Order: sequence, then structure tokens, then C-alpha cells
Amino acid sequence: MKLKIINPNTTAGMTAKIGAAARAVARPGTDIIAVNPAMGPVSIESHYDEALAVPGLLQEIAAGERAGMDGYVIACFGDPGLLAARELARAPVVGIAEAAMHVASLIGASFSVVTTLDRTRGQAWHLAERYGMKRFCANVRACELPVLELEVPGSNARQRVLDECRRALAEDGCDVIVLGCAGMADLCRELSQALGVPVVDGVAAAVQLVESLAALGLHTSKRGELAAPIAKPLRGLLEGFTLPSQDPLAA
Amino acid sequence: MKLKIINPNTTAGMTAKIGAAARAVARPGTDIIAVNPAMGPVSIESHYDEALAVPGLLQEIAAGERAGMDGYVIACFGDPGLLAARELARAPVVGIAEAAMHVASLIGASFSVVTTLDRTRGQAWHLAERYGMKRFCANVRACELPVLELEVPGSNARQRVLDECRRALAEDGCDVIVLGCAGMADLCRELSQALGVPVVDGVAAAVQLVESLAALGLHTSKRGELAAPIAKPLRGLLEGFTLPSQDPLAA
Amino acid sequence: MKLKIINPNTTAGMTAKIGAAARAVARPGTDIIAVNPAMGPVSIESHYDEALAVPGLLQEIAAGERAGMDGYVIACFGDPGLLAARELARAPVVGIAEAAMHVASLIGASFSVVTTLDRTRGQAWHLAERYGMKRFCANVRACELPVLELEVPGSNARQRVLDECRRALAEDGCDVIVLGCAGMADLCRELSQALGVPVVDGVAAAVQLVESLAALGLHTSKRGELAAPIAKPLRGLLEGFTLPSQDPLAA
Amino acid sequence: MKLKIINPNTTAGMTAKIGAAARAVARPGTDIIAVNPAMGPVSIESHYDEALAVPGLLQEIAAGERAGMDGYVIACFGDPGLLAARELARAPVVGIAEAAMHVASLIGASFSVVTTLDRTRGQAWHLAERYGMKRFCANVRACELPVLELEVPGSNARQRVLDECRRALAEDGCDVIVLGCAGMADLCRELSQALGVPVVDGVAAAVQLVESLAALGLHTSKRGELAAPIAKPLRGLLEGFTLPSQDPLAA
Amino acid sequence: MKLKIINPNTTAGMTAKIGAAARAVARPGTDIIAVNPAMGPVSIESHYDEALAVPGLLQEIAAGERAGMDGYVIACFGDPGLLAARELARAPVVGIAEAAMHVASLIGASFSVVTTLDRTRGQAWHLAERYGMKRFCANVRACELPVLELEVPGSNARQRVLDECRRALAEDGCDVIVLGCAGMADLCRELSQALGVPVVDGVAAAVQLVESLAALGLHTSKRGELAAPIAKPLRGLLEGFTLPSQDPLAA
Amino acid sequence: MKLKIINPNTTAGMTAKIGAAARAVARPGTDIIAVNPAMGPVSIESHYDEALAVPGLLQEIAAGERAGMDGYVIACFGDPGLLAARELARAPVVGIAEAAMHVASLIGASFSVVTTLDRTRGQAWHLAERYGMKRFCANVRACELPVLELEVPGSNARQRVLDECRRALAEDGCDVIVLGCAGMADLCRELSQALGVPVVDGVAAAVQLVESLAALGLHTSKRGELAAPIAKPLRGLLEGFTLPSQDPLAA
Repeated sequence: MKLKIINPNTTAGMTAKIGAAARAVARPGTDIIAVNPAMGPVSIESHYDEALAVPGLLQEIAAGERAGMDGYVIACFGDPGLLAARELARAPVVGIAEAAMHVASLIGASFSVVTTLDRTRGQAWHLAERYGMKRFCANVRACELPVLELEVPGSNARQRVLDECRRALAEDGCDVIVLGCAGMADLCRELSQALGVPVVDGVAAAVQLVESLAALGLHTSKRGELAAPIAKPLRGLLEGFTLPSQDPLAA
Repeated sequence: MKLKIINPNTTAGMTAKIGAAARAVARPGTDIIAVNPAMGPVSIESHYDEALAVPGLLQEIAAGERAGMDGYVIACFGDPGLLAARELARAPVVGIAEAAMHVASLIGASFSVVTTLDRTRGQAWHLAERYGMKRFCANVRACELPVLELEVPGSNARQRVLDECRRALAEDGCDVIVLGCAGMADLCRELSQALGVPVVDGVAAAVQLVESLAALGLHTSKRGELAAPIAKPLRGLLEGFTLPSQDPLAA
Repeated sequence: MKLKIINPNTTAGMTAKIGAAARAVARPGTDIIAVNPAMGPVSIESHYDEALAVPGLLQEIAAGERAGMDGYVIACFGDPGLLAARELARAPVVGIAEAAMHVASLIGASFSVVTTLDRTRGQAWHLAERYGMKRFCANVRACELPVLELEVPGSNARQRVLDECRRALAEDGCDVIVLGCAGMADLCRELSQALGVPVVDGVAAAVQLVESLAALGLHTSKRGELAAPIAKPLRGLLEGFTLPSQDPLAA
Repeated sequence: MKLKIINPNTTAGMTAKIGAAARAVARPGTDIIAVNPAMGPVSIESHYDEALAVPGLLQEIAAGERAGMDGYVIACFGDPGLLAARELARAPVVGIAEAAMHVASLIGASFSVVTTLDRTRGQAWHLAERYGMKRFCANVRACELPVLELEVPGSNARQRVLDECRRALAEDGCDVIVLGCAGMADLCRELSQALGVPVVDGVAAAVQLVESLAALGLHTSKRGELAAPIAKPLRGLLEGFTLPSQDPLAA
Repeated sequence: MKLKIINPNTTAGMTAKIGAAARAVARPGTDIIAVNPAMGPVSIESHYDEALAVPGLLQEIAAGERAGMDGYVIACFGDPGLLAARELARAPVVGIAEAAMHVASLIGASFSVVTTLDRTRGQAWHLAERYGMKRFCANVRACELPVLELEVPGSNARQRVLDECRRALAEDGCDVIVLGCAGMADLCRELSQALGVPVVDGVAAAVQLVESLAALGLHTSKRGELAAPIAKPLRGLLEGFTLPSQDPLAA
Repeated sequence: MKLKIINPNTTAGMTAKIGAAARAVARPGTDIIAVNPAMGPVSIESHYDEALAVPGLLQEIAAGERAGMDGYVIACFGDPGLLAARELARAPVVGIAEAAMHVASLIGASFSVVTTLDRTRGQAWHLAERYGMKRFCANVRACELPVLELEVPGSNARQRVLDECRRALAEDGCDVIVLGCAGMADLCRELSQALGVPVVDGVAAAVQLVESLAALGLHTSKRGELAAPIAKPLRGLLEGFTLPSQDPLAA
């Protein structure tokens, strides 16, 4: 099985970390291809960043379909471009926020999300609503930690994340922690040991879910909203995103 | 990995079919132990049946914990006893309705459930609400098919399920079908081929999800609502369900 | 009118207290039969306890129907087995959580529930949702009081309940208190006097509601989800729960 | 016990019918005082009618409090002025839509409301939402029957209501019928016999609920939103509605 | 364009202030007619007050329709009589709570309402739900300020409103403030400057929205629930509210 | 006042029509600048199209801020990029779906949306939820009409839209129609005349709402989620979207 794990920002170090987290949980025989787009922002911390990360992400999905991938993970907690990616791909696509929230709802009564910047909390709540997971979401908490600070050796990022998780358990009445950033994937095990409750990393969770969908022979439904996009001209800088008019995906 | 797949009714033929469906999707190296309780109703088609299926189910969970199972599937679409089972087990427990609905929400815009008797539709809607999946559930449809008729060779059950799936696609605007009974597990592939949309069988989906949770090292949170039950005397016919007062699960 | 008040746990002292609370508010001419099952847990403080209290409860309902009861109260705040009991009975069945919440919504803008153990709060919220009462429920608060401590003379249970009620009024913005345990029935009057707001005990409320339904000539609808369960064999320890195949309830 | 049943329109014939329905279910010893205001519309079929029925209704509540009533029923399915009445009264106040919906939710899985004019359906849905009963309400159906036609001997009103109830059962999947107008109170028994499912009349239901609240010693909470209104001058035509500045209700 | 701004209480000083706020934002060429009814309470701080403010308000709407108004604003944050007014008028009618909440949802992620008395908070939440704005409403906060104290020169009302706004920003996570009383209209600009976030006054917002509806050629739909009320007799003190039986509005 | 109306697709003919619709309702003195991006798809009929329309749209917003625009309209019924645009702009930004739904909720009890392709219905429902307008939305209906067919002289597009509006009124119980595509702006008046109910075009509605926000002196809140995006490098094809690191918008 070949899975493409797409870090939608353009920071290669983070892509490497995400790839390692994916490989650590992938089934034997699964080939993890971790990539990031050639275009777009170095980190995703706003709706603006997210919007501009999506074209590069879609390019990776389209290339993946041509290369016969068996599934995709969108490895940013805002799950940017998820529905557009599902239109483009027949193979299943899972976002890491989606994966983490679904998994958390299977092992506890409620979870708190611990994320980076306060300004991204709205998007996490929005996704919880879209996925039906709002009823399990006790709180979304920010550490006021820029995404890329998680990549800086020697920063106090780990400690701040741990402290916020402790506050979540003490104040929110939750019994599971969801990590709210792909850049926290490497903290999952130590947080879980320190906290004594399950801690869910979306990258690992999404890898497992996509593998499961593929193993079940399930693809994205091509009936209705998620059918292949209608081929049509694109202009200007984005001309290259024009889909072939005899769209092989529609077959 | 050892997974216990519990058919909560006492019909051994159905247990065998469920076991086969589980084994067909299990990972190499996963040992599927398909069982049904020694006590309880031969099929589950009412709240009464469901209530009386739960003690036997819990007995199987308790025995499974003593035997070191890595996870459990509750293989009845009403997901009977799910929260009580989660209290009892540290290993993850997933219900087939829960699994099928979650999986369906990852591959389409909305699903319709096709189930057996009209009187069970309320429970399916209730579960959709509890799991946050109501927003993805276009409809719950019944074939007015008693559960055990699915076990009768030569019955027209297959055709009636197929017809109801066709009505779902034509009238509900859904793009995925969820099979609403463990006894339909063997119909999944042919229905999917006939309908041209993804069809989700909860048994297979639940096996994949439990394997995923176990592979992620995630167990049921023992903090709060799902902590091990407080040991206390049980009386009369159910005396045997008294938990040991030094409960090893609480550790 | 003959009403059966079923304490679903097997602690006779609590049954006696519940019976007294029921008789204190029953109409002249109403015969209160307070019972507890012969089988099951001594108190109900988990999903496990609740699941194992239900068979004994259903046995009492079935016996009640044979004896011509005019209605039933399920006297545990988790309302265990309510829908199964409604299937089994033609006479109306009311749970005490259900009764208390409905009554509270008629006399105030919002209520807080004060219950026993923190781990049971999830079930109270779940019931509030099922009954449509979530919008009136300001909070569910636990005193961390084991159910049977309410039965111990000289314990500080009364004071702890009173203190938690005071916190509810101060912090939740509620204007009514709902007592979250059948074992608190005898505290209702004194709490109301101490707090100066209406305090609702579910046992008394449920007796009034069942009497009202009976007086209105209303029975449980036997059309659809709550029709009599389909008769079928039960096996093993629960064989005795097999319903007669010519089910007189279905008539 | 003295209960005031207030028909908020000014049609005395309808008041008499409502009074009879109330007396038919009241407990022995309950004194039913059925009244209608001296001012306001002859029937209530719009928001305009409802708004202008409220002052007269509130006058009856205020007079009732001075006369020491033990409870009130607002006998119009729009439940006009319910919260204002609760502010004014210490004794409990119940609306007939509220009562009917609550009662219906205790005896079935879902109800359909059968009401008079199509234009009043929005208000019925609105009340279902306010009372938390929307989840039990399968449909609100209109017979396109003006309220006062129910008072005309020899009209085909009875038949039209029966026909609409039959359609509700056939099309809505409900198992209980709620009558959506106080003027239908006298049809309840015959409809129930013809339909074979429980039919709930709000007038009878509300009498039972108010009697229950009074028997439980429960009054409207005077803490917060429903406290007695602050006394202040009213001007012009409504000057007479000025409350005494030393408001005895506030005590 | 002629707009009638109706202060539904009978305090002329407040009407003048509201009129000034309306004129300050009205388009050139818009004629603002600010009025208050001749009958009703001097301020609106309870459901009782609100109910008794509505007849006078409706009288002003009816007179407005005869005078050919192009639109109406109901200038009290409880939006009393809104649906009845819409039945009566063909020209658009907007309430100030409705206007403020809609506008706030267009410029921020969430708003807090700062209002007068604690007892009116329930009505503000109720309106937020009715208008679909509950998801944007972070909190409703009261200053415990009687409405007419806002009219008293030299009171500390301004400071108390400002303090509560500051608490809202610090504690609620909102990014917009909605003023919860027509009597606060004159504070909007200075609060916005002091707080550094948008502050929305409903009077100004409603004037803009009604002007917009009129400019778009949109009137209240006369199909269904908001069609002109059916003409019928009114009795007693309210006889004058009888609509002409040949209702010109229905045409 | 200078308003920029952005058609997010690259079809200039449609931009001209949208500009004309905007000018037809703009206030005297408002300067309407109708534009479309230089890059992106020729029409927006999928999540893919929408994602690829957003960069060009954001470029227009950024240019607009530099040019001192007083407000923006996003003239596509999917409201693409709305939150990213709000981050980028201090001046108010309104989407046409948002505007049309809000306006419709002020003049009727419920609306139906009549849109182009069936596959876009999910997005319309999603927006209705996000804006709180789901409770007013009776239905979203598609004519199976490609967006650009609305631009073809002599097509039967007008008739198909009219027919679908008629079905909406007959079957959905709505009292207002919302046009679900910017390309239908020119049909609004004739549809309204043919149907006899208010018909809302989002382009006109959005122009009015943005003018209103600007007239009220309200800008997008720059506190929290909608604050200016954090400046950071963008790579590759989208390098030009890098914001200046001394972001003047953040001040």
C-alpha cells in the first residue's frame, strides 16, 4: 500500500518529522511517501495561510492519483482543502484533525484539543462541528506557541504543551487529549506517559484510518458532491491547475 | 494481536458468519476470536432483546480482559452495552454501528442506513446522534426483514436489501450505504458492485478501527465516566457478575 | 389505582425510603407497591451497574403487567431500562430523571442537577439530551457521595448535598434544583426550605406524572418502536425471560 | 384545590367546552374555574391575535393570585403570555401546548400535532423548540379549519380532524397524536378510539400537570427571570395594568 | 423614504434619544419618525412589561401602514411584537436585537451582549436562538442597571456599561460588543473608541437594515405565517384593535 | 464610498453583469468597482474550483486595501475565501450567500435557495449552518444548470430557474426565494413579479449590507481570529502572496 502524507506547509523539517511519525505506526508493507508542496506558506496559522496552502496540496493530490496512491493524509490540524482533495481523488483522503477527533471519540467520553495559537481555535471548533465531534469536544486550548517554535531545538515548547494538557485535565473534565498540530506528533508518547490518559496524535491516527479504508476496499464516493470536478479552463498563474477535459477520474 | 468479536445474540450460525467477515479484513497476525454469549436472546430486534443481550456480552468482555485481548468488537448494529463494556475493558471496544457510521463519514457527504425491522430505526437514529453522526445520516430505512431471515438459505432477503439500497440512493440524496445489521456482513461486496457506491459493513469497519486503536497504543481512558466500575455485591441470578473487590482493572 | 415503584437496585432499605416518598405524594386511593428486583447490584453508579440492574427491573415490569398495574415508576436517576420497560408494558412507565427534569422545566427558567458521583454526570447529561431537557439544564453537579452513604445514619451526606445546591445557585444561574438520586427523596422538603427555590425530587414527580397519565386514560403507544417485543427464545441463565410466544401484550 | 383555566380568547362557548374538558379529568376536590378575558379577540389564529389576547389573560392571572388560586392553565395551543403569566403568579402556570407535548413524549417515540390553520404551524414548531420537544415532534399538520368552525354544530370539522390524524399516522411515522387546539378537547376520546393510538388533548393534560405541581408543593421559581415584575407606571388605555408599587408577589 | 422608529415604552425622553441615534445614521432623504405608543409601561424589563408594550406598538404599526411608511424599527432589545408587527405591515420591520446580532455576525467571530438587568438575559438568549445567532453569541452580560437609569444625567451608568464591556472582552473570547438596550444608543461611539473593537448599537443597525430592505424593494412576505391577520372582532378595552373586515393589507 | 465587488471566477461577462446589478442598488455616491481575478477558474462549481478561486480573490482584497476601499463583496454563492478575506481587510467583507440568507430571514418565515448544480447543494447547506441560517432554510434546490449557461443568450435557463422556484413554493412551505448564484442577479425582479413573493439576489443584498456596515463606521474586528495574518514567507508559484513583514494592517 502506498500512502501519501502531505504536509501542506513548505517547511521540509516538519515534513520529515511528520513522515517519521507516519512510518512509526504504518503497517508492514505500507510505503509512506511524505511530501510538502513546492508552493505556499512556511506554516499555517491563519485562514489566509490555509487558503494559500491549498493549491500546492491539490497539486500533490493530483500527482498522487496519477502515481496510483492508495490513500492520502492531509497533515495540518486545520484539514485544509479536504473536500477539494476528496473530489480530486478516488483513493480515500483523511485530515489529521478529523482522524484525531474520531479516534478520541472511540476511547473516551470527551477530549480537549491542545493547539498552537489562540487565533486558530475557531477553526478547530469549526472542524469539530463539521465532523460531528463537537459533542465530544470539551475545549480547544492554545499554548500561544507559533507552529515553527515546535521545530526549534531547546525551546520550551514541550513544557508549554504539557502544562496546557495538565490544565485541560484539571479544568475541562475531559478524559482524552488531542494534539492540535502536526508538529506535535513527536510529543505524543511522552505526553501520554506524563498525563496518564490517552493522547491522540492526528498524523498517526490518520495513517491508521486511511490504511483501514484502503484495506476495506473503500474509496471516496464519486456520486454527488464529491464527484470529480468538472473540467474547465483556469487562467493566469493557476493555469496549470486546469484538469484534462477527458477527465479520467470521472470514469 | 488478539481481537474478540462478540455477536451479542445467541445464534451460533450468525456468529460464524460474523467471524468470517472479521477474518476477511483482519491484518495478518491478528487472531480473530468470534464468540456469542451463552445467555440471552437469539436475535436482537427490540429494546427488550438488547437489554437482555447485555449481561452475556459483559461476561464475554470480562473473560476477554482476563485472557488479555487487545480489543473488542460488539457485532450488533444497536451497539448494546457499549459504555458498560468500555468501563470493564482497558483494551479498546468498538460497536459496529459506531464503526460503520464513522467510516462512512470519511468517504462521502452523507449515508443512508439500510436495516432490518422498522421498529429498530429509532435506535439507529439515537446512535447516530450519540456518535455525532446525525449530520451525515440522510435516512434510516428498514426492509421489514427479521434478523434471522438473513440466515435462511434461499430467502429473498438479499434482493430486499438491494432494493432498499436502490431506493435510498434514488430518494435520500446519499452517496454511501451503511448496512444496518451484522447479519448483512456477507452482502457488502455484491451490494457495492451492484450499486456503484461505497457500501460499509460495520463488522469489517469495526475490526479495522479496533486494530487501528491497538496499533496506536490507545486504550479506553480510565479517567472519569469510563473508569472501571466500583466493585460491589450483585444478588440473585446475577450474583456471578460481582466484580472482585480488589479490582485489578482499576490499577 | 395501583402503581408499582421499582427501585432497580437490590437495597431494601432504599426501597422502603422510596416507597415512603411515593406514598407521601400519591393521591388518595392510589395503592403504591414499592419493590426492588431479586437480582442485580446493591447500588447503581456505573454503566455496568445499570446494565445489570435492567433484567431484574424488566422482571418486575412483566410481573406488574400480569398483576394489572396501572403504571410504573423506575426509581433510579439513570432511568435504566426505560424503553425496554415501555415495550413490555401497556401501562405508562416514567423514569425519575425524566419526571424531575420535565417538572423542573415547568416552574423555572433552568435547573441544575445535584447528584452523587462525578462518574454518573455523563449519564445525566445524556438523559437531559434524550428528553429534550438539555436546554433547561444549567449544570449537573456531583457531591462525590456514594449512593449508599445517603442511607447511613449520622453521615454528613445531607450537608454535602446542601452545600452543592448552594454552589449551584451561586454559580450556575439556575432557579430550580433537581435531586439526582432516588436516595435523596427524603431531603427534598428541607432543602427547599433552606434554599428558597423549588427543589424537585424525581420519585415524587414521577408518581404524580404516572398518576396523571393513568387518569388521562393514556397508555404507552403500541405502534412502532414501543410495540410489545417479538417473542423469541432466550438461552442460558436468562432463559426465564423468554416471552410467551402468543404474546398477550401484543393484542 | 382551586384551578383557573383561562381560555385566552373571548368566545364564551369555547370557554364552556374547555371547562367541561377540564372538569372531566380534574381530581375529586379540585375546583375548576373556567374563564375568558373580558377583552381581546374572539379566536387566536395569528401572532396579532395572540399579542392582543395576552393583556386580558394577564388580568385573569393577576385576579387569580388575589383570589388565592392554586394553579393556572392557559388554554390556547399557542401558549400566549406563558412567561409573563409565570412572572405574575407564584402558583404554577402551564400552557396546553406545553402540557400536551410533554405528556406525549412520555408515552411514545414521537408525536404529530394536528392543528387548525396552516399559518399557525410556525408557532407550534416554535413552542416545540422552546420546550425541548422538537426532537419528539414528527410533524405539525393543519386541517385548514378556522378555530371557531370547531364550535359550529353540524360542520364537518370532526371528520377533517380525523382524516388529518390518519394521514399523520400513515406518513409521519409518529405513534401519538397531539391535538393542536383547545377547541378540539371534546374530540379526544373518539379520535383515540378510531385511531388506535394515544391522542393527547392539552386541556386535560395541563389540568393534570398543574394539579401535580400543586400536589408536589411546587411553585414557579421567583429567583431570576421569572421573579415578580418590577412595579412601574403604565400609561394610557393600559393604565389599569400598573402593579402596586409595594408588590406583595415579590415577598 | 419614511421610516418609523418605535420605542415601545412610553418614556418620551428615551424616544428622543433613539430618534437622534436613528437620524445620525439615516441616509440623506430618509425621514425618521420616532414615536412611542400612548399606552404601556415606561420601561421594559420583564415579560410582563413586554407583553403590555405590544398593543401600543401594534397601534403604531397599523397607523404607519395607513400613513404609507416604508419600514419600521422596533427599538427595544427584546424585539417585542416583532412577528405580529410583520403580519400587520407589508413594509419591512426589523427589531434592534435582530439587527445588532446580524450585523455583529458580519464583522467578527463572536459577540457578547451587554445589557441592563440580569432578569432580561433569558430573553436575549432566546432571541439569539430564534435569529440563528446563538452560535455567534459568546455571552449575554448584565450591568444590573435599570433601563431608565441610563436616562439620568450624572449617573454612573456609562462607567458600568464600559466596565462590563471590558469584562466581556477579557473573559468571553469575543471580538465584538453588542449593546443590549436602546437606551445605550448614545454610548456606542465612545465605547468603541475606549475598547478598540467594533461596538454595535441596534438602533443604528436596524435603521440601516430597514433602509437596505426598502432600497432592495423587499417587503415582508405575505405568503403563509406572516400574511395579514384574519379580520375578526376584538372585545372590551381592546375593541379598537379590531381590523377592518375588508382588510386592505390582504390584497 | 468605494466598494469592490469581486466576482471570484475569471469570466468577464459575468463580472459585468454582477457590476450592473450592484450599481442598480448602490446608494448615490457609492463607487462600484467590479472586478474578477486574473487567475483561477472560469466558473465555480466544485470545492476544487472554489479552492483555486481563492488566491486570485485574496489578491484583489489586498490590492483593495492598498487602494483604500470602504468594503468588499464576494460575488459567488459559495462565499469562497470569506474568512481569509476578513483577515486581510480592515474594511468590511460580505459574501453574497451570507447577505442573501440574512436578508431573507428578515422578511419571511423561511426561504428556499434555488441554485445551479446539484453538487453545490452541500456547500449551500454548509454556509446556512455557518451563518446560523439553517433554521430559516427550508430547502436548497438545484436546476442542474451549469453556471455559464446563465450567460448564454437564448438558453432556457430563465425558465428552468422559474420552474424550480415554483416547485419550491409548492413543496417546501417557504415564503421567500433566495437565488443561489451571482449569475442569476439579473433575474431577480422578473422572478419576484412572476412568483408574488420576495426574491433575494445576493449581489444586491451584499452591496446594501456592506454599505450599511461602512455607514455605521463598523470594520472587521481585528481582535482574535480575524486579526491580520502573521507575515511569513510563501514559496514557489505563490511567492507573490508573501505579506510585508511590517504589516501595516496589524496596527
